[in-house]
Amino acid sequence: MSSHIFHRFVGNPLFQGLSVDDFEHIAERVPFDFHTVAPGHTIVHADDPCEGLICTLSGTVCKEEVSDLRHYSFREFITTNTVIQPERLFGLRPRYSASFLAETEVQYFSVPKREVRDVLFTLTPFHLNYLNLICTTQQLQDSRVWRSLPDSLEGRFLHFLYSRSSRPAGRKELIIDMVALAGELTATRLRVSQMLNDLNDRGLIELRRRHILIPSLETLLQKN
Amino acid sequence: MSSHIFHRFVGNPLFQGLSVDDFEHIAERVPFDFHTVAPGHTIVHADDPCEGLICTLSGTVCKEEVSDLRHYSFREFITTNTVIQPERLFGLRPRYSASFLAETEVQYFSVPKREVRDVLFTLTPFHLNYLNLICTTQQLQDSRVWRSLPDSLEGRFLHFLYSRSSRPAGRKELIIDMVALAGELTATRLRVSQMLNDLNDRGLIELRRRHILIPSLETLLQKN
Repeated sequence: MSSHIFHRFVGNPLFQGLSVDDFEHIAERVPFDFHTVAPGHTIVHADDPCEGLICTLSGTVCKEEVSDLRHYSFREFITTNTVIQPERLFGLRPRYSASFLAETEVQYFSVPKREVRDVLFTLTPFHLNYLNLICTTQQLQDSRVWRSLPDSLEGRFLHFLYSRSSRPAGRKELIIDMVALAGELTATRLRVSQMLNDLNDRGLIELRRRHILIPSLETLLQKN
Repeated sequence: MSSHIFHRFVGNPLFQGLSVDDFEHIAERVPFDFHTVAPGHTIVHADDPCEGLICTLSGTVCKEEVSDLRHYSFREFITTNTVIQPERLFGLRPRYSASFLAETEVQYFSVPKREVRDVLFTLTPFHLNYLNLICTTQQLQDSRVWRSLPDSLEGRFLHFLYSRSSRPAGRKELIIDMVALAGELTATRLRVSQMLNDLNDRGLIELRRRHILIPSLETLLQKN
């Protein structure tokens, strides 16, 4: 394995702590599948079966999740190297819950589930990285359920965005009409519209037709 | 290992699919610690470090979780053999997020983290059971975030209970004052009180001072 590839693997959260010997061991046994996806193309569709691990090596990925009644969709833009829903590899519903698209050109590799189980899990650092990753995701998600609902409408809107974010930072996009958002925030359409226009005037969000763009969720959360 | 103990292990979700040979292998290497807890006593406190797996063998366990601002607490009663928060064994925050108390006399055993990792994980059925268990928990919890908020106040109250339940069935108890509940449901105190009294009159909940008892969450969810 060339040192160039080696360094890119090391940047991935699942491969941290592996030695050069571990990489030699992996390279002999695991059929890594490398891909390059053009901007706008899909990496996985929501509901596709999760049959292996997909790890990105470069580019910006857009994660899009749709609410169960299809009232709205929520997009997150992931600019760091990431593993796509590793918690979907096992369990009762081993299918992706969101679609992942290439926002810029994206390079990624995939490892079939069998090799994850039979080869990668035998390497202690990889196995612990995987367990730590899925347990951390679960812990962060669980903690959000127990946050009290804020009194103010602006606070409730931020709570709505925060609860649906994998990471409470970065660029997000909410595609929703005003009536549906008013329903989700239990407020009138007029009050929701005033609250959004105020955030727009303060430069914290950008309003477009049916689209609410949040350039930086961390800035929006800090300003509240 | 006596056949009596063996059968009780088999009833635990993590030990399903293990052979008699596997149990012999485990019995030689793992220092199982058996406990009996009297009614009303604590098994683990919220925020205790999770240093191993705790598996119940008999009795009813009460799981109590408190909201971050301590506005309310929510209790679930677990009558089947269970593993206490296995997703807290790894990750960024390896501490229990809830307290677990013995409602009746509870028997349980614990396995230290080291033996889980070094002995139990080497047995494929155990390892897959563990991965399936934590991934399923994560998948169910994630899916709840994307359910649309119902229009009716009664629907929103059920959504509140459902989102906080590990299992959308069984006996639950919500300890909250009316002002805090009105805030969580974004409704007036009067409307919340009317809605609860209506559910009480229909025999679906029992109202006590600051306590809302739900004898069967599945019945309540079906009647809505």
